[in-house]
Amino acid sequence: MTNAFAPPDNPAPMIQIPGVRDRPVRLGVLISGGGTTLLNFLDQIHSGHLRAEVPLVIASQKSCRGVERARNAGLRCEVLRPRDFSGVEQFSSAVFNLLRESRIDLVTLAGFLSLLTIPDDFSGRVLNIHPSLIPAFCGHGFYGHHVHEAAIARGVKVSGCTVHFADNHYDHGPILLQQCVNVPDGATPDQLAALVFEQEKTAYPEAIRLWCSGRLRIEHGRTVLGELPQDV
Amino acid sequence: MTNAFAPPDNPAPMIQIPGVRDRPVRLGVLISGGGTTLLNFLDQIHSGHLRAEVPLVIASQKSCRGVERARNAGLRCEVLRPRDFSGVEQFSSAVFNLLRESRIDLVTLAGFLSLLTIPDDFSGRVLNIHPSLIPAFCGHGFYGHHVHEAAIARGVKVSGCTVHFADNHYDHGPILLQQCVNVPDGATPDQLAALVFEQEKTAYPEAIRLWCSGRLRIEHGRTVLGELPQDV
Repeated sequence: MTNAFAPPDNPAPMIQIPGVRDRPVRLGVLISGGGTTLLNFLDQIHSGHLRAEVPLVIASQKSCRGVERARNAGLRCEVLRPRDFSGVEQFSSAVFNLLRESRIDLVTLAGFLSLLTIPDDFSGRVLNIHPSLIPAFCGHGFYGHHVHEAAIARGVKVSGCTVHFADNHYDHGPILLQQCVNVPDGATPDQLAALVFEQEKTAYPEAIRLWCSGRLRIEHGRTVLGELPQDV
Repeated sequence: MTNAFAPPDNPAPMIQIPGVRDRPVRLGVLISGGGTTLLNFLDQIHSGHLRAEVPLVIASQKSCRGVERARNAGLRCEVLRPRDFSGVEQFSSAVFNLLRESRIDLVTLAGFLSLLTIPDDFSGRVLNIHPSLIPAFCGHGFYGHHVHEAAIARGVKVSGCTVHFADNHYDHGPILLQQCVNVPDGATPDQLAALVFEQEKTAYPEAIRLWCSGRLRIEHGRTVLGELPQDV
């Protein structure tokens, strides 16, 4: 059995995700690049498909296009660069302090390339999207165009995207949702990226809606969509 | 980059698959177990969905249920056990000699668990089906129920099946076709196996039809469905 396909280590006991049902969910969006996923969230919010607000964007690079886009949209965008901290713990601590101060309900990694250590109070409250069907083409080194280049090189006929709970490893936490795309013969990595991004545009908002529903729980490292808990 | 996702080593130059268009394709079916894929082929042949005949079945175990089923269907079924040979080369040589004698066009591995060394004259003429979306949950140790147990343990929301050209590694050759299934919450490995097998029942015959069409070629280790070659 190859490690690449192993389930999450030491899966925690059952976690019920309380969700946010009575008001717009407060999203923290973490970016490292173009911010296209952030723009998609804003489109979904404006069109009424996603009941959310974005009180805080955090970018891990000063000059990325996403910073400009966030600020143009009137959002608060803070830049926190890992290189300015002495280690992952210190960087993560600063990131989560900002998120706490902004009373963020749910943290969405949106092309965020820096590893984070997730504190206990954010357990079950950080989502990531990965542009492949995990556990294929994921893990260290598989980000952005590297994912699609590897998929094209292997000649897969199906790829897709995965929204998962983030843990403290790359592309490793419980999977919330996956959507497939057919890979056309002769597609380039860029063409595949565009096809997968079309799926991402619906998958990530749908995952956020599921998270908000109060119906999700994590059992043995697996995500289950159940009924509403009885106390609500 | 993890080895598990690597493309086939030293992909051969372009191979055009000539196919078989003017008569039923002569299938050799290699089994190790229950022979359910063989029965599916026979159903597809009898119902007119697959233009094929099965002049030879080879089983790698004497007492497997597939041997009984093949013989009950009136098929020639030979048992060749790896343990009766001094090595993979000798075993493979005996297998392909039988296939040659029966003038087999296309060899279909159908739950065949023994590694084979494919001789040059069978290059592009051996297909395998794997009950996951390669490169997920494949390679050494991932066969039968182990595949579905790993998929359920990882909590994937999508799995499927893959028909690929066999090379001399497990689950490693160029991919011909992949079909997805949604994994219901709470599904057991057996339930997932049943869902994936429903896809296999259409995927493998479809792959055989594509192989026969004369439109397939392998380029850089990837399968491409093109137009009919100009000389036909």
